[in-house]
Amino acid sequence: MIREQKINPENDLGFGPQPVIKNQPLLNKNGTVNVKRKGMSRFNTADTYHTLITMSWTKFWLVVLSGYLFTNLVFACIYVAIGHSSLDGTSGGNGMSHFLDAFFFSAQTISTVGYGHISPQGVVANSVAAFESMLGLLAFALATGLLYGRFSRPTAKIVYSENLLVAPYHGGRRGLMFRLCNIRKNVLIDLEIEVVFSYNELVDGKPLRRFFPLSLERKNVSMLSLNWTVVHPLDQDSPLIDITREDFERGEASFSVLLKAFDDTFSQTVHSRTAYQANEMVWGAKFVPMFQRDEEGRIVLDMSKINTFEALS
Amino acid sequence: MIREQKINPENDLGFGPQPVIKNQPLLNKNGTVNVKRKGMSRFNTADTYHTLITMSWTKFWLVVLSGYLFTNLVFACIYVAIGHSSLDGTSGGNGMSHFLDAFFFSAQTISTVGYGHISPQGVVANSVAAFESMLGLLAFALATGLLYGRFSRPTAKIVYSENLLVAPYHGGRRGLMFRLCNIRKNVLIDLEIEVVFSYNELVDGKPLRRFFPLSLERKNVSMLSLNWTVVHPLDQDSPLIDITREDFERGEASFSVLLKAFDDTFSQTVHSRTAYQANEMVWGAKFVPMFQRDEEGRIVLDMSKINTFEALS
Amino acid sequence: MIREQKINPENDLGFGPQPVIKNQPLLNKNGTVNVKRKGMSRFNTADTYHTLITMSWTKFWLVVLSGYLFTNLVFACIYVAIGHSSLDGTSGGNGMSHFLDAFFFSAQTISTVGYGHISPQGVVANSVAAFESMLGLLAFALATGLLYGRFSRPTAKIVYSENLLVAPYHGGRRGLMFRLCNIRKNVLIDLEIEVVFSYNELVDGKPLRRFFPLSLERKNVSMLSLNWTVVHPLDQDSPLIDITREDFERGEASFSVLLKAFDDTFSQTVHSRTAYQANEMVWGAKFVPMFQRDEEGRIVLDMSKINTFEALS
Amino acid sequence: MIREQKINPENDLGFGPQPVIKNQPLLNKNGTVNVKRKGMSRFNTADTYHTLITMSWTKFWLVVLSGYLFTNLVFACIYVAIGHSSLDGTSGGNGMSHFLDAFFFSAQTISTVGYGHISPQGVVANSVAAFESMLGLLAFALATGLLYGRFSRPTAKIVYSENLLVAPYHGGRRGLMFRLCNIRKNVLIDLEIEVVFSYNELVDGKPLRRFFPLSLERKNVSMLSLNWTVVHPLDQDSPLIDITREDFERGEASFSVLLKAFDDTFSQTVHSRTAYQANEMVWGAKFVPMFQRDEEGRIVLDMSKINTFEALS
Repeated sequence: MIREQKINPENDLGFGPQPVIKNQPLLNKNGTVNVKRKGMSRFNTADTYHTLITMSWTKFWLVVLSGYLFTNLVFACIYVAIGHSSLDGTSGGNGMSHFLDAFFFSAQTISTVGYGHISPQGVVANSVAAFESMLGLLAFALATGLLYGRFSRPTAKIVYSENLLVAPYHGGRRGLMFRLCNIRKNVLIDLEIEVVFSYNELVDGKPLRRFFPLSLERKNVSMLSLNWTVVHPLDQDSPLIDITREDFERGEASFSVLLKAFDDTFSQTVHSRTAYQANEMVWGAKFVPMFQRDEEGRIVLDMSKINTFEALS
Repeated sequence: MIREQKINPENDLGFGPQPVIKNQPLLNKNGTVNVKRKGMSRFNTADTYHTLITMSWTKFWLVVLSGYLFTNLVFACIYVAIGHSSLDGTSGGNGMSHFLDAFFFSAQTISTVGYGHISPQGVVANSVAAFESMLGLLAFALATGLLYGRFSRPTAKIVYSENLLVAPYHGGRRGLMFRLCNIRKNVLIDLEIEVVFSYNELVDGKPLRRFFPLSLERKNVSMLSLNWTVVHPLDQDSPLIDITREDFERGEASFSVLLKAFDDTFSQTVHSRTAYQANEMVWGAKFVPMFQRDEEGRIVLDMSKINTFEALS
Repeated sequence: MIREQKINPENDLGFGPQPVIKNQPLLNKNGTVNVKRKGMSRFNTADTYHTLITMSWTKFWLVVLSGYLFTNLVFACIYVAIGHSSLDGTSGGNGMSHFLDAFFFSAQTISTVGYGHISPQGVVANSVAAFESMLGLLAFALATGLLYGRFSRPTAKIVYSENLLVAPYHGGRRGLMFRLCNIRKNVLIDLEIEVVFSYNELVDGKPLRRFFPLSLERKNVSMLSLNWTVVHPLDQDSPLIDITREDFERGEASFSVLLKAFDDTFSQTVHSRTAYQANEMVWGAKFVPMFQRDEEGRIVLDMSKINTFEALS
Repeated sequence: MIREQKINPENDLGFGPQPVIKNQPLLNKNGTVNVKRKGMSRFNTADTYHTLITMSWTKFWLVVLSGYLFTNLVFACIYVAIGHSSLDGTSGGNGMSHFLDAFFFSAQTISTVGYGHISPQGVVANSVAAFESMLGLLAFALATGLLYGRFSRPTAKIVYSENLLVAPYHGGRRGLMFRLCNIRKNVLIDLEIEVVFSYNELVDGKPLRRFFPLSLERKNVSMLSLNWTVVHPLDQDSPLIDITREDFERGEASFSVLLKAFDDTFSQTVHSRTAYQANEMVWGAKFVPMFQRDEEGRIVLDMSKINTFEALS
């Protein structure tokens, strides 16, 4: 059974008392909220931007490339539709060759490279070409904005240990421990972390989710220079002191981690979130240090060791 | 009659004791301030930018397109004015056909596509063309900045329930309730809300506007994961406990809502405002939940239900 | 004589006890610091950027235009130096006409318009042209960044009344008053203002500057909807209660105004500063209201009245 | 020996009790953290951006130029591979001359200048050219973003005195002093500084690093108008009062300086860090003032004097 404790209403992550069922965490491992949403208006510029900014680079380049091809196909058809006379300097061939001339002319126009060995003739073709070149400039303006937007987004990338250890902690106590570090080059300062424990409790028969902020050995770090091992001491003040492994499982317990930091390189506040489920807890193990010294006495931090721990006999 | 209470002077939204007359709210539904302004210097770069950034996309594209057409018209006239000899490779026709040649040459120049089948001849035409192409680059630089500016603006879009309900609230009390959710994909954290009640009071004959911050069941949410139902309990501590429906109407009462949040996707602080007038209050009704569970037990939030409530018999 | 009072060391605006002499204010009317600086390394990218961002638009366009002309002149000379054969399609004239051909070819290259009626011949000319076109793209990239930088800077423009009034203030007291409003369209919220009074005091013969934060009727406004009249009550708690007009003059007194606000449109924190000197104080006058009502009862704010006051008999 | 004192755990700069050995400071003079890192995934967009943004301008231009040359070389090879017929308008020469034609054509395509005296023939060459011009636009979009990113980074450049002086301080005491100023034009306000003293202490035989926040005569300045001399009074409350010069050396003592300010010109929070080692302390010297008055009585600040001090007999 859990100990009674004043709950800070701010700490329910905005879920209220909704219970977790069928092992559906509230917060996913990657920090996103596990809620499906519907009923929003389909098209939505801000979300389009959001999507283009957050999608993977591979996807992004595919979108750009296919957009470029598609637009050229459309304009090629238009030039073909206008007729042979519309493009001067073409091989004058028919069907496919004519289409290809139109396609490449379109590419030369939209990219504003305009060699000129093919050039538009007549009012219609000229108007289309004039419009296409303007379109090209704007499309390119968009690409510029998107590329910059993708780059300049808060770039802190925090890596967390996969497991949450129940390890011995000085003073013969035990503590809940996980650790994290920043695998990016940018400097993170003024870090602040919050860990919220939540689990299902049966209140007159029906399950309700309850949330408990966990006190930490240390809530802040002024600079993330090495790795940071976050510890919740399992002492008399901890609401978890009496909980058994079975309780954690049964209550679909989870630990939500909310990290806030200031990215000193781009002067932005950045947030990072993750969650540990009961099945990610390891009992009786301790982390292996992540750093050694090199010959000059400099500290060397090995990121790949983030989750390395040793079981305790 | 309203109960006496210490007023926080910060909460008058900067209006001071100006009364509301003829149902002119201080804060519009969309969160803008209902004040007409005059006497500013007409032309004002920052405001031009502001206008171009905040106007609708349709309007924006119209401005860009017409700007492009207009500039080309101007330059076409200049090339025509310089005379036939100024453009080489034209059909050499007169009047309209000459003008069109000039127009399309201008378009090819300003978009820097420069096919070259038409090219400038002589010092004057060359100078104009050189200037126009530079202008084109800068205009395009502007467009880039504007497009990026439009995209990268704080994008949280909070939707509020249209009505303010006077609903039963646990402990047999009643409460004033409205709810909100974010219809955008970006994650909002550290939300803080403030509700200010204002109404006209007769002070020795003349009406003065008075402002009362309302205490809320909950002022903060650490993450906006689902919808958020904001509640002002109508208990003994509420300044509204004794007010009748008629009082609300007579005093041109309004509730100003000020929401502050941190957009975690673009790491910007965003604000949202709205207001409820007396005529938007619904007495004796309660909101219908906005979410169900899907088969996997995942919570599904239906944005379209934001204002769905049921009357209470 | 001034009353003793605890001084908040943070309020000396970073000047320490340096006295003001020969009416050289510490803070200029426009909010800049009145200090000459030398000994900095001359060339300094960040400052170049700073200069280009903060200079007037007229100046900015002149810089861009002259840069464009200058670069073209330089490249024109290069092409001329390489010799006639370097450019194909030129009139083949000598001296001036050759130079002009080179100049316009350069313009067509740097703007990437590249008509092609003139084209580079030979390795040298081609290499120069290839380099120039790359340069053109980068120069233009710079222009884009600068234009966007100029636009997206915090744009709040606070206008202050020119004078600081010593006006009657409720409760039969007097108060020091000035007022301000935002002439831009962007919404300012969470405003906070600080007024620091400073003057020279003779400490054993030599003058020292002393600073006194002034208590205000109101330090914050949650939204700048109308104008804001800032009042320092001249009551028993004011350090100025006993100062005479002569004292203000003699002590080279000045009032520094520091305003902080959040620009809700671009979600940036903006600051504004100004200062009032003793000779800008007006004794026995009061401000005329800046707004009336229109026929619909809407408040109409007239910015042009910002400094309108009436003398009191 | 050092005096016992409550240590604020936030002040260990994220290093914990790791001792400093072989004079390897935790914080480098330039404010970077002295830790080697390994085990990160090699390629990493955010870090690529970080590198391109933070590298020196010379390096940056070299990267851009070589990237441009390299890409053109690659495409030149492709055009050559496709064969003579692929490019129309070339001299038709072989080997080198053919390659050069291809190279310059590529340059004209990627920069979208496209003179057209050389133009692509056939489907293959046209496709490559179409792709190359698109690539050119995107590369350029990247350059734009990078240039703007480089410019718009927080630009405060704080210069610190090279030495930390142990100077006489009013009241016959001594104080630890260093000074700083901003050599950039942008206005810094709301400055806040923190100085942390750290040194190795032997705890039962093995050295541990201990950290002591030092109390300062003044922690904040509302505006950095002149230079700022930061003073830690060596009085009875100072943990350093009893430490000898030898202790500083032996304990590999260092002083970490953390400065936070708001850049009013670009409305960004900026941070600056530096560190002083024991061997940079100067005993019995005092700083020479950095400013005089000019004839109009204006204060003139001479940045070059930042580290000028005079020894005391």
